[in-house]
Parts: sequence; structure tokens; C-alpha cells
Amino acid sequence: MSESTQQSRWLGFDLGGTKMLAQVYDGDNKALGRARKKTKGTSDAKAGLERIAETIELACEDGEVDPKELSGIGIGCPGPVDMESGTLLDPPNLAWNRVPVRKYLEDRFKCPVAVLNDVDAGVYGEYRYGAARNATCVIGVFPGTGIGGGCIYRGEVLRGGSASCMEIGHIQVMPNGPICGCGHRGCLEAVASRLAIAASAAKAAYRGQAPGLAKAAGTDLGSIRSSALAASIDADDEIVKQIIKEAARQIGIAVAGLVHVLSPDVVVLGGGLVEAMPDLFTEHVAKAARKRVMPVYEDSFKVVPAALGDDAAVLGGAAWVQHVLKQNESQAEEKS
Amino acid sequence: MSESTQQSRWLGFDLGGTKMLAQVYDGDNKALGRARKKTKGTSDAKAGLERIAETIELACEDGEVDPKELSGIGIGCPGPVDMESGTLLDPPNLAWNRVPVRKYLEDRFKCPVAVLNDVDAGVYGEYRYGAARNATCVIGVFPGTGIGGGCIYRGEVLRGGSASCMEIGHIQVMPNGPICGCGHRGCLEAVASRLAIAASAAKAAYRGQAPGLAKAAGTDLGSIRSSALAASIDADDEIVKQIIKEAARQIGIAVAGLVHVLSPDVVVLGGGLVEAMPDLFTEHVAKAARKRVMPVYEDSFKVVPAALGDDAAVLGGAAWVQHVLKQNESQAEEKS
Repeated sequence: MSESTQQSRWLGFDLGGTKMLAQVYDGDNKALGRARKKTKGTSDAKAGLERIAETIELACEDGEVDPKELSGIGIGCPGPVDMESGTLLDPPNLAWNRVPVRKYLEDRFKCPVAVLNDVDAGVYGEYRYGAARNATCVIGVFPGTGIGGGCIYRGEVLRGGSASCMEIGHIQVMPNGPICGCGHRGCLEAVASRLAIAASAAKAAYRGQAPGLAKAAGTDLGSIRSSALAASIDADDEIVKQIIKEAARQIGIAVAGLVHVLSPDVVVLGGGLVEAMPDLFTEHVAKAARKRVMPVYEDSFKVVPAALGDDAAVLGGAAWVQHVLKQNESQAEEKS
Repeated sequence: MSESTQQSRWLGFDLGGTKMLAQVYDGDNKALGRARKKTKGTSDAKAGLERIAETIELACEDGEVDPKELSGIGIGCPGPVDMESGTLLDPPNLAWNRVPVRKYLEDRFKCPVAVLNDVDAGVYGEYRYGAARNATCVIGVFPGTGIGGGCIYRGEVLRGGSASCMEIGHIQVMPNGPICGCGHRGCLEAVASRLAIAASAAKAAYRGQAPGLAKAAGTDLGSIRSSALAASIDADDEIVKQIIKEAARQIGIAVAGLVHVLSPDVVVLGGGLVEAMPDLFTEHVAKAARKRVMPVYEDSFKVVPAALGDDAAVLGGAAWVQHVLKQNESQAEEKS
């Protein structure tokens, strides 16, 4: 590693529906500083962009890095993005639409900015440094408020014609299933996200069938986070265990479909819910998926929990912008 | 086009579950000769490979081309293939398993051979010369005995970790649906392939509700081909029209899922059934798909019927082997 690379400074950013996280790295991807804020998705896009910039500045301050020194920013955003122009298109969990994230941040920080989907950023992090190192085709499934998906295919973020893809939360899995936040019925995230699990578990707690959960979090969906669900499992709330197994089974059925479509060698499961109960989740997703694929695919993929936790998307974002710049350089060299 | 390119000879091959087709081309992809045989999928793989080689020789004979002059062979095969080694893995509609197609043909014809999935070959043909020219991400859906899928992504066949992919016929679309040839339940092809449509239509004919179909083909599934179904529609068999619309709707739901996963700019529908009634099929697939995608994807894709008919896969195969050889050349140049 040359001295100049080590002295370079990169910023990874994870824009979530509820919180935003910025982390600043040196050229070896060693973390130097970080900052975190609530997203306030209901405020307008301009205020949101300002808030993103402030969080970047706070992370730099924390890492004693002058924002002017940044060599690049990689930012993962929820929902589909236009990766060419760096535009956030229409995030289902934010009241924003067609926000020119890249332009705003490049104008403000005078350094190159790469915008990608937040789950793609997380999967890229796992691909470079985590549970899916060196895989040819990695699919990530991250159940949270919704269910995010991402794919790194031959070292690149898989993207479609005009927008990023892998919006697997909105694949229909239950023809007459519950209504989803997107307005359609029976989407995967309407039956198997952490929010869907929390709603089913809250009903059980309300009926007196999940005393462990009632004690840990009551029946308020706002309180039934992954840790409360894990506490409920530890307290032997059998019905909550069944609810989670059923969600994992539904995700496994969707994963089987993705195996037929993309033939991944690794499927990474991530997010707070998986982190809180990695074995339970991984086992049941893998079992349901393997049961439903054509024989030729049965041994073609493994299902693993993510390894990097909250750091996956920020680290992935920082690594992604470096990758994009390297590629632009080598393309420029080819042309000259 | 240089003289040497024009004088080159390329062979495209389409190995189907029921028939095989070979076509020989000059360097401008002008067809010079062709040959067709029944596949006889129940015979063993060795006899099958021999039969493929004979069909290639017949096509050469028809085109007055010495097989020794062939610069390359591109062959589309049913089911998942290992594109690196050129191995046909486990075709659901042939009694073959792990057949080293590339090695056999290279030994026999002493020229480079590229093996790909048959629908990928067809979609590549449509991408290069047909209904999806210059698209960034094309998905092909070909309903026949099963339902084949293919994808050309940024000029390359999309492939997964170890096997080719887009086996969309085996995505589960109906949790407790009819049993599929693969042994699972409710696969897309169990509810919406030409064979599934024919079975439903045969029931209607047997009940006396589809006189047009009864007249055109009787109730034998072996006779209810695409042309008979089209004749039934022309004879105003309302129930057959409903059956086909419902199949198109199911395919549209699967296409909506694929739009969320891959965000294609073009979806090509092909195969005999679509060819026999392109408008009916395209309209209802597009309608069902558009209704079920997230708003951001609503105008991001078009659904079109294939333009090349039976020639798509042979032309695609011949074009693909040329593409692969060009790429190998430029990679070799980069290294030297």
C-alpha cells in the first residue's frame, strides 16, 4: 500500500429509513470516526440533504479529518436509485422523490460521490470484507421495516435498465395476502419483514400467548424491536418462535425463486432481526429454499448470516466509491 | 466487413426438448443452410451427441459448407448449463445429465464451441437482431412445454455462480398449486406453460365447452399445439380465451417479480404460443405485470413479442460464439 493511498480519506454513508450513519476511513479502510443521526424521513428532501451533509461533517470531526481532505463519498440509500446520475428515485419509506443526492454532495464536498442502494452497499461490504468474500454472485436479503435485497455479481452491483434492482420485498409471495406498504397485496415484506413479525407477535402478546414478549416490550409495535423478539424467544414464547420460523420459511421460498433466477453461490442474511437470532433464521431460510429448488441447484448455494453488522453498508459504501473511481481510471487509460 | 470475416462460417444450434435445429451462417450472419431432426430425448446422451453432430453435418451439406471450414459453433441447450466448461447439467425435459457438449463437439469438429442455455440463445438473438436490439437488460420469457427464461445483461448472458440461471418456469407462483414436472408444487410452468394451457383447454373440450378446439385437435394433449389453440380462439371458444388470459396473467405476475429483481428495460415474449397469438399474450402479460410493480418501475420496461421466430436461438447461438471468441481475443491482447 503506497503512502498516498494510506493517507487518503474515504467516507461511507448509510441512509436508512429511521437513522443515518456516516463513517470516515483511511486508505486501508480503517475506521477513523463516525456519526449517527435520526433520518426524519417526513421532513422535505432539502432538509434531509442538509442533515446528511451535517452527519458527514460530524463523522469527519470525530475522526479529526478535514472534510476537504475527502477523496470520495459512497452513499447507500433506501429504495431504487439511478446509479448513473446518482439520484434517489422513490424510496418507499421516505417522503422523498427524485433527489439528486450525488450532485448535492459533490457540490458541497468537492469530491466524487457514488450513490447506490443501501442493501447493495451492505452486500458489497460483505462481499469485500465479510461473509461473502470472493463469491461470484452474492444475493443479500435484509429483513427490517421492509425487506431489502441486493446483489453483487462478478464484482459489480447488479443493476437493471434504468434503476437499481433487487427490490425483493415487493415480490408477490401470497396471491391474496396482507396489504403491503406499497399498496399491493401479499408482497414478501408484508408477510415476513421484522415489522410483519412484530405485528403478529404483538397480537399473540395481546392475547396473553407471549408473556415473555409482553414483559420485554408490551404490545406497541414501536417497542417490538429485534432485541425484544430475541428476548421473547429466550423466554420460550413458543408462538413467537413459530411466527419467526414461518417468516423465515416465506423468505426461504422467495430465496428459492431467486436461486432459479440468479443462481447465486452465496445468500447473505442481514439486518437487526437476523443479527439477534442468526442460527434460527439462517437454518429455516436455508431449509425452505433448498426444499424448493431444482435438484441441480440444491448444492449450488450456501446461506450465511452477515458478518459485519451495522458496518456493512458504511464500509461497503466507502469501498464502492473507491472501486468506481478505479474503474473510471482504467477506462480512461484504455481510451488514451 | 473484411473479406476474411465474410468468408468465415458459423454454426448456430438449437437443442430443444422435442426437436433440434442447426443453421450455418456466413460472417455477416446470412443463413446458408439448415437441418432439423427430432431430439429423441429418451435415448442416451451418447446417441444424442451423435445425433447433434449429424444434424450439424446435414446443415453444412445443405449450405454447401465443408464442416472443416467452421470457425465456431454456438449451441443453445435446454435447462441449466455450466457455461465455463460447456456442460449440459440436468435438463428437466431430457433424460441426460452432465453431458460434456462442448468437449464432444470440439473434438469432433476441431473448432471452438460455446454452450449456453437455449432461451439465453434466443434472447441473445433478439437482443442482437430482433425485438430487443440495444437494450441494457433484456428478459425473455418463452412458454412452451415448460417456461424458459433468459437474460442478456449489458451485452452478456446473465449467469450465476456455477450454473446458468433464469429458470423462471420453476419459480413458485401458487403455494398449493398443481404439481410440476420438477416434483414441486405451483411452479409457474405448472400453471402457465403451453402444456398447462393445453391440459385446461382439453378439459373444456372434453366437457363440450370448446367446440372449436374439439374440431381442430380433439382432446389429446399431443395434438393441442399452439396452432390448435389459435384455431380455437378464432372459433370463439370463449373459455379457451379465458384460460389463455389467465396463463398470461400468471406470467405477468412472475414478470412483475422479475422487474423488481432485475429492472429490465425490455421483456421479450417468445415461443410458438406467443407467436400464434402475439397481441392477446403481450397485452395481458404487460397489464398484469404493470399493475403489480412499484410506481418507480411502472414505465421502466416494455413488453414485446419476439421478432425472429424459430431463428432466434440458432442465430443467437451463432452470434454468441463469435462474441465469446472476440472477447477471448481482446482479453489475450490485454494480457500481452
